[in-house]
Amino acid sequence: MKKQNNNGKVKIIPLGGLEQIGMNITAFEYEDSIIVVDCGLAFPSDDMLGIDLVIPDVTYLKQNIDKVKGFVITHGHEDHIGALPYILKEVNVPVYGTKLTIALIENKLKEHNLLKNTKRKVIRHGQSINLGCFRIEFIKTNHSIADASALAIFSPAGVILHTGDFKIDYTPVFGEPANLERFAELGKKGVLALMCDSTNAIRPGFTPSERTVGRTFDNIFSDHKNNRIIVATFASNVDRVQQIINSAAKYGRKAVVEGRSMVNVIGTASELGYINIPEGTLIDIDHLKNYPDEQTVLITTGSQGESMAALSRMASSTHKKVSIKPNDVVILSSSPIPGNEKAISKVINELSMKGAEVICEDTHVSGHACQEEIKLMYALTRPKYSIPVHGEYRHLMAQKKVVEAMGIPKENVIIMSSGDVVELNEESWDIVGHVQSGGILVDGLGVGDVGNIVLRDRQNLAQNGIIVVVLTLEKYSNQLLAGPDIVSRGFVYVRESEDLMEDARAVVSDAVADCLDRHVNDWGKIKNIIRDSLSDFLWKRMKRNPMILPIIMEV
Amino acid sequence: MKKQNNNGKVKIIPLGGLEQIGMNITAFEYEDSIIVVDCGLAFPSDDMLGIDLVIPDVTYLKQNIDKVKGFVITHGHEDHIGALPYILKEVNVPVYGTKLTIALIENKLKEHNLLKNTKRKVIRHGQSINLGCFRIEFIKTNHSIADASALAIFSPAGVILHTGDFKIDYTPVFGEPANLERFAELGKKGVLALMCDSTNAIRPGFTPSERTVGRTFDNIFSDHKNNRIIVATFASNVDRVQQIINSAAKYGRKAVVEGRSMVNVIGTASELGYINIPEGTLIDIDHLKNYPDEQTVLITTGSQGESMAALSRMASSTHKKVSIKPNDVVILSSSPIPGNEKAISKVINELSMKGAEVICEDTHVSGHACQEEIKLMYALTRPKYSIPVHGEYRHLMAQKKVVEAMGIPKENVIIMSSGDVVELNEESWDIVGHVQSGGILVDGLGVGDVGNIVLRDRQNLAQNGIIVVVLTLEKYSNQLLAGPDIVSRGFVYVRESEDLMEDARAVVSDAVADCLDRHVNDWGKIKNIIRDSLSDFLWKRMKRNPMILPIIMEV
Repeated sequence: MKKQNNNGKVKIIPLGGLEQIGMNITAFEYEDSIIVVDCGLAFPSDDMLGIDLVIPDVTYLKQNIDKVKGFVITHGHEDHIGALPYILKEVNVPVYGTKLTIALIENKLKEHNLLKNTKRKVIRHGQSINLGCFRIEFIKTNHSIADASALAIFSPAGVILHTGDFKIDYTPVFGEPANLERFAELGKKGVLALMCDSTNAIRPGFTPSERTVGRTFDNIFSDHKNNRIIVATFASNVDRVQQIINSAAKYGRKAVVEGRSMVNVIGTASELGYINIPEGTLIDIDHLKNYPDEQTVLITTGSQGESMAALSRMASSTHKKVSIKPNDVVILSSSPIPGNEKAISKVINELSMKGAEVICEDTHVSGHACQEEIKLMYALTRPKYSIPVHGEYRHLMAQKKVVEAMGIPKENVIIMSSGDVVELNEESWDIVGHVQSGGILVDGLGVGDVGNIVLRDRQNLAQNGIIVVVLTLEKYSNQLLAGPDIVSRGFVYVRESEDLMEDARAVVSDAVADCLDRHVNDWGKIKNIIRDSLSDFLWKRMKRNPMILPIIMEV
Repeated sequence: MKKQNNNGKVKIIPLGGLEQIGMNITAFEYEDSIIVVDCGLAFPSDDMLGIDLVIPDVTYLKQNIDKVKGFVITHGHEDHIGALPYILKEVNVPVYGTKLTIALIENKLKEHNLLKNTKRKVIRHGQSINLGCFRIEFIKTNHSIADASALAIFSPAGVILHTGDFKIDYTPVFGEPANLERFAELGKKGVLALMCDSTNAIRPGFTPSERTVGRTFDNIFSDHKNNRIIVATFASNVDRVQQIINSAAKYGRKAVVEGRSMVNVIGTASELGYINIPEGTLIDIDHLKNYPDEQTVLITTGSQGESMAALSRMASSTHKKVSIKPNDVVILSSSPIPGNEKAISKVINELSMKGAEVICEDTHVSGHACQEEIKLMYALTRPKYSIPVHGEYRHLMAQKKVVEAMGIPKENVIIMSSGDVVELNEESWDIVGHVQSGGILVDGLGVGDVGNIVLRDRQNLAQNGIIVVVLTLEKYSNQLLAGPDIVSRGFVYVRESEDLMEDARAVVSDAVADCLDRHVNDWGKIKNIIRDSLSDFLWKRMKRNPMILPIIMEV
């Protein structure tokens, strides 16, 4: 094991994050110890056609596997735990987190048959673990999933406080408010750097308590005593589901949970005591028919318009067990994640066409800190350095602005990019290097076998389709034995464009004949000539640019 | 000319609209007269890969060309005039509109070489035209483009009032407020049906005056006297540009207009006197370098994150004449059109990374009526029937709710779908039929040669790529002379997946050999066997489903 001199400085290395929103994974290194905070996945951006998800490139961890002591997880959302099943196969170190977080990770490991091979340990809030020369303390925060933690990372160079995703909820639905006292205590002792959630840093004010949504639910339940009620929300928002169940119990309705991911999370949360379901309130979806509509509430996934989720299937009449009726009231208890707006509109339109009333107002609060909560966190912890994390670049910049207004000098605000190696201690900070990082694309069972060239081809195919030109040449003589034949897909509706395809074939025939007359033997050249002549013809005739794929066979 | 009996009822036939948001075109028919209100285009939805735009199917107008008296246009936005150059080629009738509207249409006709062949007539607000048995009066409204009109359509069955897109602005930047007096007068005389803009029907309250944005501009200009200012807005929002120019003049800045579509609109508006530019305020972009940054303002397109628009090119450093500097202040004077949120975020992030400050708050007001304006319109015109138009289904339903609360009976609110033939008079209304309608896809120069099959192929190609399998058989004997060869595009990065491709080739070879051994002569069958065996193999091995295209050549 090579011992590296850190000059008394701790290294922070974000391996994902800014370029792929959601892929939260950050390494902390001091001499021979590395710990990794979170291991999230990103959902593909619009130009990543056909990609299922994106996981972080952990080459740096693999190269330094002897140093890596473990993954320390802030909370159980996909963008913080989703890549674990993929990464643990290559970086098999223990995983630490709070009870619900570890349980949700275990659900994932089960699916990937990794439960046996993965060490994991449940940590309580207030408890610390020692990993190499780091000590990590888990501190209670609030978020849109239970058991979220901030991490106080004690290193020989000083304390780094990582908030994870957080908000401050003085009246949480479950458990305690964020442990402000402990943040203040750490602040008093001295915090080297605060890595603080920026997701809502462009929003002024204070994120309302989760309880405010419960009041809205009560009002809606009270106003719609003759309707069936369907509530869609995030599968992992256990407190939200708790509040829907509370309203259901209060108004004498039976509740059904529908949607695979929600059934899983609520099952786990219920087993572990994170949700309290009054006896007889929850019923199986198959028993729904035994109750009048106005005595039931369905709690489902699909609040983001995801096409395969329960609500979308109900809206498009493809759900096997639930049909939307004109008397239904549908509550969307969520706000759109950017990029999902059109899909959500589509679902609302479909529900409206079936006569359902759709309610979206005051039915959601964020799980992230707004500006006043960010200020509170800085006021309590009084860090030397500010390192805004979580969010797009504009969100980091918004936190920078907030923080500077509080008196932290501009030069002490550190904006990190993926792969940056940031070294810091009380005296100074610097970016001292850059390691391999970024996203690896997962498509089906393939991990990393789709890259930029394949994506570029998919984009071209998507926009313009493909024309395949096939011909058979005689070996040695290079005489044309068959073809050129032209086959297209995704280009034009061939039956209505016979003239065009006939003309295209003629263009290719002429080009090939000309090549062979001139005794061009190089197949690469012949293919290029086919491609160029056909491409010219199609651009002039139709201003279109399909992919052209010439294939030459030899007999 | 066949004379049709209308039973004293007027027909309303929406030919686009609800299914393709933006494609606003509605036919009004009475006996031997048809007039058409608006002729807009829709931008392709996400699943219309490679499509440039969508125009309405006007088969019904072509079939009844003898009856069609003209297009009557409410205002000059793309979703109301954009399809004219395509449709006029097939339905060549006169076009009527206000001065700026006709001028913007003429810009389009010029581009399509249609100016000579198209009759057009400028109508003033307050003026009426007689077309067949219809009389149409143009009534002043307010909107995010100057010269917007509501249309009072006088038919023998009664008056139908079509608001077009509208808001009510008591303090407009240019010209007069909407002509409320005339709406009241019509109401007093009796309105059969009100077709009212629903775009903002889910929003309570009253849309603020365009002037409120001018005050924000003044504040921003006053707060940033040492910065260059860049304002992005909609190319056609002449009043917005006017207000930016007003602030520029007030604070002693030179203004540059950048972006082809904006230069065109502002040029036209300026010629016609719809914008007032103080002498010496507007300069050419090439003269920008002669002025210090803090004495300039750039007015550009690209507020929706459109990748080819000026602001996006500046943000991504591909604009030839303008580079973003750390001292720049960028104002986004617009709100995101649903679906554009991610593209806009991308631009904001890029601008932020270059150090620019981006301001989006209070920098825009809508051009559409909110609930209180919709109520005002109904209160003034007191129609027998309500026909909500413009907007998605959920917006129409929101207007329905507003209108019912005002006392219009539920059964008098008419929700139309594309192609519906709605017949109505004072006694009753009904949907009496359905005509061909919907969207025709434009891809390059091709109009309608891309349909559902081609789109489905493009979607499949986009998600999974394509594998082409080629083989050459001997005529009569059906002996395998060459191949099977396998070529893929958009599937995997072949060099890193050599084993996979080798195994795939073996699977196909076995399948072909088996076919030929069993003397299968039907090429269709051979192709199916190739497709099935390869498809099975790939699904089992990688959970992927590329398009498989077998091609057999014969020598």
